[in-house]
Amino acid sequence: MSAAVFPTEVLSPAPSVATRRAEATRWIAGLHDELTSFFGRLDGGGTFTEDRWERPGGGGGVARVMTDGVTFEKAGINRSAVMGELPELAARRLGGRGAAAGATHFFATGVSLVVHPRSPKVPTVHLNVRYFELTDEHGNLTDSWFGGGTDLTPFYPHVADGVTFHRALRDMADKHHARFYPDFKQWCDEYFVNVHRDNEARGIGGIFFDHLRPDEASHDLDHAGVQAFVSDVARVLRHAYEPIVERRRHEAFNEAEREFQLVRRGRYVEFNLVHDRGTIFGLQTNARVESVLMSLPPLAMWQYSPRYAPDSFEARLVRMLEPRDWITDATGE
Amino acid sequence: MSAAVFPTEVLSPAPSVATRRAEATRWIAGLHDELTSFFGRLDGGGTFTEDRWERPGGGGGVARVMTDGVTFEKAGINRSAVMGELPELAARRLGGRGAAAGATHFFATGVSLVVHPRSPKVPTVHLNVRYFELTDEHGNLTDSWFGGGTDLTPFYPHVADGVTFHRALRDMADKHHARFYPDFKQWCDEYFVNVHRDNEARGIGGIFFDHLRPDEASHDLDHAGVQAFVSDVARVLRHAYEPIVERRRHEAFNEAEREFQLVRRGRYVEFNLVHDRGTIFGLQTNARVESVLMSLPPLAMWQYSPRYAPDSFEARLVRMLEPRDWITDATGE
Repeated sequence: MSAAVFPTEVLSPAPSVATRRAEATRWIAGLHDELTSFFGRLDGGGTFTEDRWERPGGGGGVARVMTDGVTFEKAGINRSAVMGELPELAARRLGGRGAAAGATHFFATGVSLVVHPRSPKVPTVHLNVRYFELTDEHGNLTDSWFGGGTDLTPFYPHVADGVTFHRALRDMADKHHARFYPDFKQWCDEYFVNVHRDNEARGIGGIFFDHLRPDEASHDLDHAGVQAFVSDVARVLRHAYEPIVERRRHEAFNEAEREFQLVRRGRYVEFNLVHDRGTIFGLQTNARVESVLMSLPPLAMWQYSPRYAPDSFEARLVRMLEPRDWITDATGE
Repeated sequence: MSAAVFPTEVLSPAPSVATRRAEATRWIAGLHDELTSFFGRLDGGGTFTEDRWERPGGGGGVARVMTDGVTFEKAGINRSAVMGELPELAARRLGGRGAAAGATHFFATGVSLVVHPRSPKVPTVHLNVRYFELTDEHGNLTDSWFGGGTDLTPFYPHVADGVTFHRALRDMADKHHARFYPDFKQWCDEYFVNVHRDNEARGIGGIFFDHLRPDEASHDLDHAGVQAFVSDVARVLRHAYEPIVERRRHEAFNEAEREFQLVRRGRYVEFNLVHDRGTIFGLQTNARVESVLMSLPPLAMWQYSPRYAPDSFEARLVRMLEPRDWITDATGE
């Protein structure tokens, strides 16, 4: 059986699996619409243009991009639902859960966003939630999980913004499981790191999680329970990010602050192109390149070996990137 | 025997090898100085600042960067001479010439440059030459080769500039071997490609070669003969690039042309961070990051899914990137 010969819908999945896939696709499309409305309103004037694309191997997506924003220089929110034969490499990487468990096909749906504000006083934010499942040659489910997260990249050392962001994440996550915030905060700190820059963090973290399976001993949430948590992740920015935008959007900024924002955006580019698994996977598997690279900033700068005085705002921002306990943090700026 | 315990100079190499290494290091340092003078003069006002750095595993380098140029927005010329234990991965990749041949240590020296002009009418140029050798545990030479090349990245569709560049390379290479230009031109066309951008070329190519060993049947040049060719590669820009700079540096340009230059520089960043073997190797082996990333442009732009009218200068530039026979080309612009 080959997906190139038979459309995947004919091959698979079993009826109960098909229902859940349809539900998952609708769920993600709903979050995509909510996030588009949220950022349209938050921007205060910009509009999103939309591109619909199809993936040759099965499925497709909807890309929405704002480039005329008042607050945001570029905002991209993308959703996709793709399916097909499980690539051999992915099957092997999944170990006993992949090929060894009889998995031959995959289904994945998710929504992903990055917004690049105009002002260096307003941080960049990234958010992604996704659902992934594997089926065997009879179309029966062999594994399923959720993943996602959100992280903040400030360009100016407003420590209070880190506190706002992390406390909102903690409050949201604690409603679902006491271990989610601390575990996923640590995972985030370990993931968004420019190893080649002496392990400098991309931003001040947030939460990051993957392979979050229903009914695991570590949390005891069923499919609906995990999905409810992931939905709350997708909706957390109204508490975690909106207050920061509201208090920083009208702050004045100067040329040096704008320049430093562009230099830090260069580090964002480095992380996404050199280290980010999602980006590299997308580029290597011939996904739609404009959607994969929608996260890149509109403008970025590279300076050779910049040096900053210890008390400069640049040096304070770099120190602020060192992982810390934001919940108990009570330092000023 | 471990390089962490004994300094590499004590371990190796045998006297004749040591003499050749010292000569190779002086040769590269001489080319580095020549190239620095050349670009200082060509710029017409900017100055290079210099950083000397040491590599923890052995050796070091000299980085020279110009950021105050009249013609060049950023110009970086780097040389290095490094040695140490051969990384296992590299030994395996060399197959029968590496670990299987008893190679345990390496020595490499080279000079590398990228210049990013201010004007979009002046192309970016990259050049690199390098010498590499392997020794066994007794310090005896087991293999040695040269590599290098130069390629041009225009931002405006001046076809005449591609002709100038390639004909100068052909004239230079033909003095050494009739196969060098055609073979190394093709290698270059195949190497500098953004595979993830539907195989779009980074620029209009030039020449690229690696593992060019003395006394091989394909060319019959000895060590001195190959080195003479590689020296000429390092000196070819006075014929291949200087005439282009001279005829374009005073051309007027507008905002749309500058913007397109920044978008194309974004593609340059993508190639260097996603595909370039030298950059990836440098980032993975903890080389000095500021030297590895010296090639990145001072400013780059990403636009979402830009579209250009078929007759626009942008569309004509993109068409100009398709590999062609520049020697026989007689099309206008």
